[in-house]
Amino acid sequence: MKNSLRTVSRREWLASSLIGSASLAAGWTSCAAAEPPKVALLPKDAKLRLSSWWLPVPGDIDAQLAFLEKAGVEGVELRGGVLKDPDKYKKALAKTSLIPTALDWSNCSAICSDDDKARQKSLDDLRRAIDIAHDFKAPNIIVVPPRLKSAFKAPDARTARQMLLDVLPKYGELAHQAGTCLTIEPVVRSSVVCLHTLAEVAAFCRELNSPGVALVADFSIMAEEETSLHGAFLSGGRYVRQVHLSSRRRRMPGQESEDARLFADGFKGLKAIGYQGFCSFECGMFSGFCDNLAGSMAFLRQQWDLA
Amino acid sequence: MKNSLRTVSRREWLASSLIGSASLAAGWTSCAAAEPPKVALLPKDAKLRLSSWWLPVPGDIDAQLAFLEKAGVEGVELRGGVLKDPDKYKKALAKTSLIPTALDWSNCSAICSDDDKARQKSLDDLRRAIDIAHDFKAPNIIVVPPRLKSAFKAPDARTARQMLLDVLPKYGELAHQAGTCLTIEPVVRSSVVCLHTLAEVAAFCRELNSPGVALVADFSIMAEEETSLHGAFLSGGRYVRQVHLSSRRRRMPGQESEDARLFADGFKGLKAIGYQGFCSFECGMFSGFCDNLAGSMAFLRQQWDLA
Repeated sequence: MKNSLRTVSRREWLASSLIGSASLAAGWTSCAAAEPPKVALLPKDAKLRLSSWWLPVPGDIDAQLAFLEKAGVEGVELRGGVLKDPDKYKKALAKTSLIPTALDWSNCSAICSDDDKARQKSLDDLRRAIDIAHDFKAPNIIVVPPRLKSAFKAPDARTARQMLLDVLPKYGELAHQAGTCLTIEPVVRSSVVCLHTLAEVAAFCRELNSPGVALVADFSIMAEEETSLHGAFLSGGRYVRQVHLSSRRRRMPGQESEDARLFADGFKGLKAIGYQGFCSFECGMFSGFCDNLAGSMAFLRQQWDLA
Repeated sequence: MKNSLRTVSRREWLASSLIGSASLAAGWTSCAAAEPPKVALLPKDAKLRLSSWWLPVPGDIDAQLAFLEKAGVEGVELRGGVLKDPDKYKKALAKTSLIPTALDWSNCSAICSDDDKARQKSLDDLRRAIDIAHDFKAPNIIVVPPRLKSAFKAPDARTARQMLLDVLPKYGELAHQAGTCLTIEPVVRSSVVCLHTLAEVAAFCRELNSPGVALVADFSIMAEEETSLHGAFLSGGRYVRQVHLSSRRRRMPGQESEDARLFADGFKGLKAIGYQGFCSFECGMFSGFCDNLAGSMAFLRQQWDLA
């Protein structure tokens, strides 16, 4: 399928805004490959499947993906950069066995603003993200709760949560139809207005009750906000659809002294919920990423086996 | 020790406001019996110890306590009513083997108000609660987060949380010195401004970092707000110092169809954290309480063994 984003007119976009409308569904290819990873009912089925973003890898996109494939990761997480030239990225991906695991692109700051124009633009952007995720067969779109500091006045936590509850059912349904899912990321209290722990986001997802809204958990954020990663993943339960890997200070897993405890505890939780989604590298450090990837993967596999 | 509340003058109260002041400590008897229940490091040590409030039991206080003791509960939870005549209640308790497990008396609505006078009165009340808990050797004082609807304008969640973070270290220290602990109760989102899940309250306690501030978990509230009781108790971890027992709709444990699943899941979590505190009946229904207590206790013991 060609880059549908560029070929869909504003009028067509508006026409497709009806949830479940045939016009919307007809514009999309089969979602089979973008089916969400099933969460097993029995813990014994949990698997460690590694993914990564490609930004820290030097070279052009072909070299970046080739490096990751050779390193042994199964999936890649897409960034906003793919928008610049989707065809190029799709072609590069097609040359590899790498699976797109998520599109990390959207945040809700403007969705919860009191500026009608900005809010509408933000919702239109979310719809574009859904289309792009569909186009790349990425099963998840990462959605960050409204930030405390953004171009918009941050609403209080209760208002922000209610605004999200009001708009996300529609976009969750659109995402579900497109074979993708809006995965909300719990983020540290010092950075976002609400939704800081897996328990809070899971309660939010349960209240929202859309097959197209779930959660993505980040080890670095969890190390900051959660008292028990095992407990947090149990609370996240079937809503956990994507996991980001880094140490507490966003270094590579295994590079900090408390990492063994952190990952053993978290992996115990992922095993307990029978997690089958991807765990994707998302560290804050760029230099040394390539040199340390094999070691970090070995560390993760060891912790997984021990958990 | 006599009712210290009535014998301590306003001036003495003010004099004792210095944290760790000798005047404060000297006014109190040995705290040995009010020592907090230790949380075991190994899960195998977890025990089911049952407690109850006495309000649903007919008769005078002697008859009420005698009924509970005969029914086989080990502890009782004190309500504000004890203030009316503390000596009477202490004498009645002394005739039994029942242990006071908590004083359920305080809420933070006024602590987080913008009315200076009301705020100060509320803090003075909290200090009185600490003294009464000490006097009764009650190891916990139950503290409810600021309510959405109270005599005071509810602050937003972030402000309320920060106000509590500002004042509770002092009162947590006072509570600790008095051999008791301020246990914050996560309460449903529809009722209080902030602190709805065990993960949130545990993160709050961790940030506050006072030996005199912890949490009390309520099965009915957890059934509403948590996605996994097992996960929630793991997140609560060492901060869980008291547990309230009732079904989702505040009936007696075992009276609702989903109770087996609810309590098995929760007890699994309590076993995982090696919980040694009390689980105390706090149902919303009064009629039938006495007739159904034995059955409910048997149900709870069965679920504990199965968990």
